[in-house]
Amino acid sequence: MIDYVRDGAEIYRRSFATIRAEADLGGLPEDVARVAVRMIHACGMVDLVADLGWSPGVVASARAALDAGAPVLCDAMMVASGVTRRRLPAANDVVCTLGDPRVPELAERLGTTRSAAALELWRDRLEGSVVAIGNAPTALFRLLEMVGEGAGRPAAVLGVPVGFIGAAESKQALAEHPAGLEYLVVHGRRGGSAMTAAAVNAIASEEE
Amino acid sequence: MIDYVRDGAEIYRRSFATIRAEADLGGLPEDVARVAVRMIHACGMVDLVADLGWSPGVVASARAALDAGAPVLCDAMMVASGVTRRRLPAANDVVCTLGDPRVPELAERLGTTRSAAALELWRDRLEGSVVAIGNAPTALFRLLEMVGEGAGRPAAVLGVPVGFIGAAESKQALAEHPAGLEYLVVHGRRGGSAMTAAAVNAIASEEE
Repeated sequence: MIDYVRDGAEIYRRSFATIRAEADLGGLPEDVARVAVRMIHACGMVDLVADLGWSPGVVASARAALDAGAPVLCDAMMVASGVTRRRLPAANDVVCTLGDPRVPELAERLGTTRSAAALELWRDRLEGSVVAIGNAPTALFRLLEMVGEGAGRPAAVLGVPVGFIGAAESKQALAEHPAGLEYLVVHGRRGGSAMTAAAVNAIASEEE
Repeated sequence: MIDYVRDGAEIYRRSFATIRAEADLGGLPEDVARVAVRMIHACGMVDLVADLGWSPGVVASARAALDAGAPVLCDAMMVASGVTRRRLPAANDVVCTLGDPRVPELAERLGTTRSAAALELWRDRLEGSVVAIGNAPTALFRLLEMVGEGAGRPAAVLGVPVGFIGAAESKQALAEHPAGLEYLVVHGRRGGSAMTAAAVNAIASEEE
């Protein structure tokens, strides 16, 4: 038998203790630090802190929206899949429209990616929502365009797309958007569905 | 209108070109390099290469198993969610047993995590399978115990759990396992469901 820790609660406890010992959380508001700990837990990198950007009210705004029943709008099935439903305070809907059969034709017509086109199907739920983008830079760019056009104002945008083409630029555009959205980003190329879902899970409940 | 690349195929092309220009792929066999490119694409980090470990036959063995209809056994729903079904060569089953209603009681009885206990439900499909572990170190440790006990020999193990407690150790244990399994790992703390699913997707099809 291999010797390893088998107690899930103990693994969580030791993991979070390691993160709090190693990560430089001193410059973060307390609520953002709590979210950062779970994001670090999801990726194994304590230096993620250096790339975090946020508006001061993002965690409170997102949490209040969730408490009031707001949906979580996700750009990718992996993000939606990573949101722990029992942590959500109001049995909130977790929505991903990427697989909707209308999306390929929408993408064709709009001349954009399916990830961006899928946001067309968010229009009636965008106002007051919690947006969680963990994959596609084009989805985040499209969101910012839609907000700029008056399609609705999310309560908070967790903008954590990953990759080499547009990821850094889309997150910078979110942080600098003239609408002054409440936002949380991981600047640069890093990001992804796991840390995005972790951010939602951290905001949804104080439970560790 | 914000200026960004909206053509999905062009985004992929530029992304892979950037990765091939920046990542140090020279020391990798060609088939492993191709998998590495997609894993890097999923996490935004070209330095992932330095932590890769593999057995020389892992990609060929996993691909042959998929061609023959082997299931992909995943430790987490996010991994299963990230596997692109249309890339799979034989409409292979993608299995995650973590949500099975028997798992909590199994975990209690076995004194382990639910992620590890869920592997009990893999026993009749383990032989010749492709195992994709992208979340829980305890699942990888448990897999190695089961293989050691003669429960079956997977055709390949993609061992990419993430985190601070047991992740590095479980991946080292896979690489050194006396059964001499075909394996691919990301040594250290890094890992996760996105890069694990990306590895499956790369092995499943040469299509970029």
